[in-house]
Amino acid sequence: MAAYREILTSVSDHVLTITLNRPDRLNAWTGIMQSEVETAIRAGGADEAVRCIVITGAGRGFCAGADMNNLQTIQASAGEHYNDKTPDLKPKDVSPLEQTFPGRFGHMFACPKPIIAAINGPCAGIGLILTLFADMRYAAADAKFTTAFSQRGLIAEHGIAWQLPRLVGEANALDLLFTARKFSGAEAERLGLVNRALPGEELMGFVGELAHHLATQVSPRSVAIMKRQIRESYFQSYADSLATADAEMEKSFATQDFKEGIASFVERRAPAFTGK
Amino acid sequence: MAAYREILTSVSDHVLTITLNRPDRLNAWTGIMQSEVETAIRAGGADEAVRCIVITGAGRGFCAGADMNNLQTIQASAGEHYNDKTPDLKPKDVSPLEQTFPGRFGHMFACPKPIIAAINGPCAGIGLILTLFADMRYAAADAKFTTAFSQRGLIAEHGIAWQLPRLVGEANALDLLFTARKFSGAEAERLGLVNRALPGEELMGFVGELAHHLATQVSPRSVAIMKRQIRESYFQSYADSLATADAEMEKSFATQDFKEGIASFVERRAPAFTGK
Amino acid sequence: MAAYREILTSVSDHVLTITLNRPDRLNAWTGIMQSEVETAIRAGGADEAVRCIVITGAGRGFCAGADMNNLQTIQASAGEHYNDKTPDLKPKDVSPLEQTFPGRFGHMFACPKPIIAAINGPCAGIGLILTLFADMRYAAADAKFTTAFSQRGLIAEHGIAWQLPRLVGEANALDLLFTARKFSGAEAERLGLVNRALPGEELMGFVGELAHHLATQVSPRSVAIMKRQIRESYFQSYADSLATADAEMEKSFATQDFKEGIASFVERRAPAFTGK
Repeated sequence: MAAYREILTSVSDHVLTITLNRPDRLNAWTGIMQSEVETAIRAGGADEAVRCIVITGAGRGFCAGADMNNLQTIQASAGEHYNDKTPDLKPKDVSPLEQTFPGRFGHMFACPKPIIAAINGPCAGIGLILTLFADMRYAAADAKFTTAFSQRGLIAEHGIAWQLPRLVGEANALDLLFTARKFSGAEAERLGLVNRALPGEELMGFVGELAHHLATQVSPRSVAIMKRQIRESYFQSYADSLATADAEMEKSFATQDFKEGIASFVERRAPAFTGK
Repeated sequence: MAAYREILTSVSDHVLTITLNRPDRLNAWTGIMQSEVETAIRAGGADEAVRCIVITGAGRGFCAGADMNNLQTIQASAGEHYNDKTPDLKPKDVSPLEQTFPGRFGHMFACPKPIIAAINGPCAGIGLILTLFADMRYAAADAKFTTAFSQRGLIAEHGIAWQLPRLVGEANALDLLFTARKFSGAEAERLGLVNRALPGEELMGFVGELAHHLATQVSPRSVAIMKRQIRESYFQSYADSLATADAEMEKSFATQDFKEGIASFVERRAPAFTGK
Repeated sequence: MAAYREILTSVSDHVLTITLNRPDRLNAWTGIMQSEVETAIRAGGADEAVRCIVITGAGRGFCAGADMNNLQTIQASAGEHYNDKTPDLKPKDVSPLEQTFPGRFGHMFACPKPIIAAINGPCAGIGLILTLFADMRYAAADAKFTTAFSQRGLIAEHGIAWQLPRLVGEANALDLLFTARKFSGAEAERLGLVNRALPGEELMGFVGELAHHLATQVSPRSVAIMKRQIRESYFQSYADSLATADAEMEKSFATQDFKEGIASFVERRAPAFTGK
């Protein structure tokens, strides 16, 4: 495994955990962290031993947003030193989904494994945007969220203008972006921004069980195809989405995982999926 | 009325009730049931005496999903015996809306009458998809739901990949599809999947009153046009949706139902709409 | 300031308040009111002293919908006297956003200032549609709402068919449009139709504080750009929305508001944004 400077990674029972690791700065986002998170997710996506990816933060924060030192440097140079742009990776086989969702975080949509954000503490600015590209989000009920941009004279960055109204509705999106007010994990649940808020001390246990379920109780092949189906559907006609579904359904009839899905149900036992 | 084998139908006070009727199998879905439900809905849509359609299940279930015998046959033949495909009906005048929403259930969107799903018990897989093509959904609070697909090695079937994120948001859609976990009618209400969950013993009474309201208190002409406007809007520019609305508004000014709507309001009495 | 006949306007601390002012008719909507509200919003949008716009109703109502005298005249003439159409203003520089969102209320989306609807009482028909073009909506918990159209033999007017399912989901949109049932501000919050419902006596105080926050604590430049980003995103590919965001982010790095946003944060003081 690559040696990382600003994140930690571990794999256990088919679950890759990526921990943002600048705890003395509430895991504020840097160009290095950006690059390392992307490398780790791409590696997990390609690793047959990994069936689920969890992203969380070290210490008491999740990610406090862009590192303030970086922002001050950018400001002092009026943007001349905005140099932590996404490296132009040009992977040899960029999937159609990454072409549809370019930018810093589009690779998370293209990753064939489910990605869960476990938001353990403060989550602001680009830290919040990172979580929007996870598939599911769970938060400590007292974690503090903010979009932050309008209080810094900035704008709706990195695709959040496209994505946030689709997640929480237009009215909540405008509220959160215009006011940059702080809100709790509990409110984030009410707004639909996170799937669920939990008491802080229960968060990692809950996410661990969910990740374990995804790694053992469902077909990895099914999950990968459904993840792609959902993200493709945003720019598809209904007829095209349906045609994809019909073609994928027929293909799945010949798979080991379908055989195992039927057999385990009939035999009333836990399934043992291979992803084949 | 056609003699049906796997459904029951009845019309009372302008309300057509379709009951899935394989109670010993929790009304598991078959090719015959598929065909009969479609025939009954098309008949109700064309029948002037029908102003509202209710779909529910006989016995303690709503619809347990695809019949397991069928799935086993399909599996044993690796898909060769997947023969309960939608019959290619080619009705003489397929509406533009059915062209936009093809497949097994698109005809429900094209039906000019409101369709209400009354989910009285277990609702899984294709049974759940059926309800997504109803206009409104009401559930017993303790009814058990599951998407089921990922636990059988299957994928997001029959358009649910397109539709589910638009109903419950991306994060909930991914949760329900990835995990295939069971969830209650009460949670379905919280997620926005059903309009409302009610104590089981109150469900059919509530839906009956709602259907009666739709059959007597509002203009059938208004409802038919609004149903079409909403489903068309998903693939329209705002300007095109507005142009449709402006044209339909002007047309409605010359109708009996508009005259009756104004007169009943001014005279403070119940309206008597004809749909003309 | 123009002399208005059916609205009141006032500016205080950068907040323009527009009050629908036919309290003896629950502020029922007329052609004059339509024209005056549009004029006042366009003036506020262009006035550097205005940073936030609030719309509310005089007396115990917000807006009871189209004036019934107007509707009766239209009905009696079978639409011949439907003469309160939007005047064809043809402003010299119609923004691209107004071309995307034409019609009576599209100018509200194009207005560069945040618009808040403070729904103090009954809100019906076209009064409800007006609020959908505000950016945020707050309601008295006991305010009564209704779409009204289907009980008058009318249809989903003025773009509500496009907009309502995007705000409250398809199932709730169909419920509210089909049934025309009355619902409270408290339910409107649950459905996602308003950002929040408050006890009636707290509504204007809450909205006043929110407007004050928007006028003083965040960059007016940021808010104007984010408002445009969100509304443009509905008809953009993700890649186009992202490209806009990237271009706007780089531009903001050279602004006074970005400098002030960073400085006020580092110096732990309230910001003094200029919108430059």
